[in-house]
Amino acid sequence: MEFDTIAAISTPIGEGAIGIVRLSGEKAIEIADRVFRSPSGKKLQDVPSHTIHYGYIFDTKEERKIEEVMVTVMRKPRTFTREDVVEINCHGGLLATNRVLELVLSNGARLAEPGEFTKRAFLNGRIDLSQAEAVMDLIRAKTDRAMNVALGQLEGRLSRLIKKLRQEILEVLAQVEVNIDYPEYDDVEEMTHQMMLQKAEYVKKEIEKLLATARQGKILREGLKTAIVGRPNVGKSSLLNSLVHENKAIVTDIPGTTRDVIEEFVNVRGVPLKLIDTAGIRETEDVVEKIGVEKSRKMLKEADLVLFLLNYNEELTEEDRGLFQAIRDAEAVIIVNKIDLPQKIDMEEVRRLADGKKVIPVSVKEEKGMEELEEAIASMYFSGEIGMDETAFVTNARHIALLKKALESVEDVLKGIDQKMPIDMIQIDMTKTWETLGEIIGESVQDELLDQLFSQFCLGK
Amino acid sequence: MEFDTIAAISTPIGEGAIGIVRLSGEKAIEIADRVFRSPSGKKLQDVPSHTIHYGYIFDTKEERKIEEVMVTVMRKPRTFTREDVVEINCHGGLLATNRVLELVLSNGARLAEPGEFTKRAFLNGRIDLSQAEAVMDLIRAKTDRAMNVALGQLEGRLSRLIKKLRQEILEVLAQVEVNIDYPEYDDVEEMTHQMMLQKAEYVKKEIEKLLATARQGKILREGLKTAIVGRPNVGKSSLLNSLVHENKAIVTDIPGTTRDVIEEFVNVRGVPLKLIDTAGIRETEDVVEKIGVEKSRKMLKEADLVLFLLNYNEELTEEDRGLFQAIRDAEAVIIVNKIDLPQKIDMEEVRRLADGKKVIPVSVKEEKGMEELEEAIASMYFSGEIGMDETAFVTNARHIALLKKALESVEDVLKGIDQKMPIDMIQIDMTKTWETLGEIIGESVQDELLDQLFSQFCLGK
Repeated sequence: MEFDTIAAISTPIGEGAIGIVRLSGEKAIEIADRVFRSPSGKKLQDVPSHTIHYGYIFDTKEERKIEEVMVTVMRKPRTFTREDVVEINCHGGLLATNRVLELVLSNGARLAEPGEFTKRAFLNGRIDLSQAEAVMDLIRAKTDRAMNVALGQLEGRLSRLIKKLRQEILEVLAQVEVNIDYPEYDDVEEMTHQMMLQKAEYVKKEIEKLLATARQGKILREGLKTAIVGRPNVGKSSLLNSLVHENKAIVTDIPGTTRDVIEEFVNVRGVPLKLIDTAGIRETEDVVEKIGVEKSRKMLKEADLVLFLLNYNEELTEEDRGLFQAIRDAEAVIIVNKIDLPQKIDMEEVRRLADGKKVIPVSVKEEKGMEELEEAIASMYFSGEIGMDETAFVTNARHIALLKKALESVEDVLKGIDQKMPIDMIQIDMTKTWETLGEIIGESVQDELLDQLFSQFCLGK
Repeated sequence: MEFDTIAAISTPIGEGAIGIVRLSGEKAIEIADRVFRSPSGKKLQDVPSHTIHYGYIFDTKEERKIEEVMVTVMRKPRTFTREDVVEINCHGGLLATNRVLELVLSNGARLAEPGEFTKRAFLNGRIDLSQAEAVMDLIRAKTDRAMNVALGQLEGRLSRLIKKLRQEILEVLAQVEVNIDYPEYDDVEEMTHQMMLQKAEYVKKEIEKLLATARQGKILREGLKTAIVGRPNVGKSSLLNSLVHENKAIVTDIPGTTRDVIEEFVNVRGVPLKLIDTAGIRETEDVVEKIGVEKSRKMLKEADLVLFLLNYNEELTEEDRGLFQAIRDAEAVIIVNKIDLPQKIDMEEVRRLADGKKVIPVSVKEEKGMEELEEAIASMYFSGEIGMDETAFVTNARHIALLKKALESVEDVLKGIDQKMPIDMIQIDMTKTWETLGEIIGESVQDELLDQLFSQFCLGK
């Protein structure tokens, strides 16, 4: 396909050492040549592909230099978009990078929409839709595990599995077609049903296996909404600080990459916890601890995981018992804090009220039991390493919805066979399964869906 | 010089389409090769300089892929630092980019200090100190004019002028040396004084010319602290919004590059106004306008420029007259707002109280007179275009201080000649002038100063 030439700033917005203006399209090199001046006078259209060149961006209208740059020229098809790509590597000033962008825009490029570079990679067939979506997941990944899964998806693990399933379905559909058109045997109806049954059962099992990874996948991708609840003064704020401090999502201690950026995400052994109302907890506990049962109840509604704190040094109160009631149906860990102080709590009652939920005694202050707590949380969601082997993971809500839809169709196929419905009726459901699976990797996907999908991307990607 | 190999993330911190990990130093390519895997199996040490290559960053210890990347290899000396440089172009995720950085750090690179890449460019002689400082000014430039000046300085305009002055001084110093050692004539003392006088006067004039650009230069670099003052309800908030709206520092309307980033900077025909207490004005005027004379007085103390608003539709009050008193010695523009309403103000009294300051009638609401207001502000600081020709500008406080010091030494030279002091005494002051000028471009600069200077840079630059 041939598209117009698009351009955007592809580095995050802000003052940095390097800012990149990226162009992609048929005229990318031609447009870059209009604004680029090399000291040696060479033109970008004459340079070899995949080379980088020093020079200036020059505003011909105003006859002045805009930026000192390094320009990378990459000719199709070995590029991100499979089109000609030019990357103008600026000094990283917000203004200068913008001026360079404005200049290429006034010289024939069009401002790219969010995700449009990746969209072109998809439309030009370099990657399929699930791989394109993995690009964005990779950018947003909050933990190593999430990154591994996204990278696996970008490499095509999910795509390969989906393509294999579709191929199998296609083969049986083709066979059915042949059997119907050229019935060689009398029992063709019976045989076709039999063949269809085997294939449908296989496809159903594979889809179910994939869907079984969905819960973990979704957690990895979006994080686990976690509420820290408990009576005033049980140590919610301390626990929060300890979790954040010990589990910064990013290890290297670089100014600017700390809490501010990762916000309220903490990485507990690869499980990204998205802590609810951290500001609220910090604020109220720092001054006078006011967060009580009422507020806890409100947080419980939103939470995927509840960390319920009790005080080892106090007897259980009615409020505690009320909270036990409130978390009865939630996924929760009961944390008995302050084991550095003398015991006043009745641990037997705690275990009884916990009703099978894990009870972890800790002292946040003396950093006792924190390992066990983290282990308890992690083991609730994952066992072993994830994404290290060739397992495909479903992480994306869109994929999950399509897999469920495909599962319904294949169950209709099985029902049809069971009810001995005519084979051409069954065929319709099997074809629907094939089509629905295709939507995951972007075959037979509508334009509006594509627009909507890619618009969630960063600018310049 | 040979240094160890440094690495840093050179793009702004945040989620973006591209994140760059930059390495510089003797082992840059060797370290990159340890973590890079090309699908074709090629090694970066074998590729030609200034080429870019597709592949994966691979954690050999954990045997897993970290990121899909494009790697640029640039061999010395044609690089930013004049050392071997490798740029690893990642997908732009915060986590993935950090992992790549961690991996190169654990494979032999050291985390770069802020500005260390630019410092190496300086230490390796690619640029001088004033050019290095221009790199940072370019990144921080808030208006086109400021960008032009920074770019001019990066190109070496200031450096060339300083070098020329130093060369001239050096020649006279050498000549003096010769004259003293080999006196061919009896009047050698007289002649040497004469020669020194001419040169000192020339150098003095040139330094003064440079210092004359300092005020404009400093404004361009740092912005002009601007206070909007006036009684409640004269329209301060509307003026603020109008200025911000009409003069966004960045033209292209890209999400994320709006007010939030540029904050309170507005660009009035190339003059960067740094508006004081915009939050205060917005807040108080949005609810009930409480900002009064008291607050205005406080803001006046900080301000380089005062925009003083009056109401065309009301008679002058004692508060207004009080503010006229308060701004008597300030640089100010008197803005008579609301000319869309009937006149009640006594314009003659306004002009009298303005005492020579410009009086601009406007209607912020109907956008009348705003052009004239902007013109008035711009003409107070600049005439014509700046930085378009080959004029050197001084923008940097450090440079200004050194120029003033050099001026003092050269004035000591002139004083010495006037007092017919012995030539070797005069020579000392002239040598001091030469040395002080040298500090601007980084000759004879101490290490601590260098460390302190470059530490103000962004990380990764």
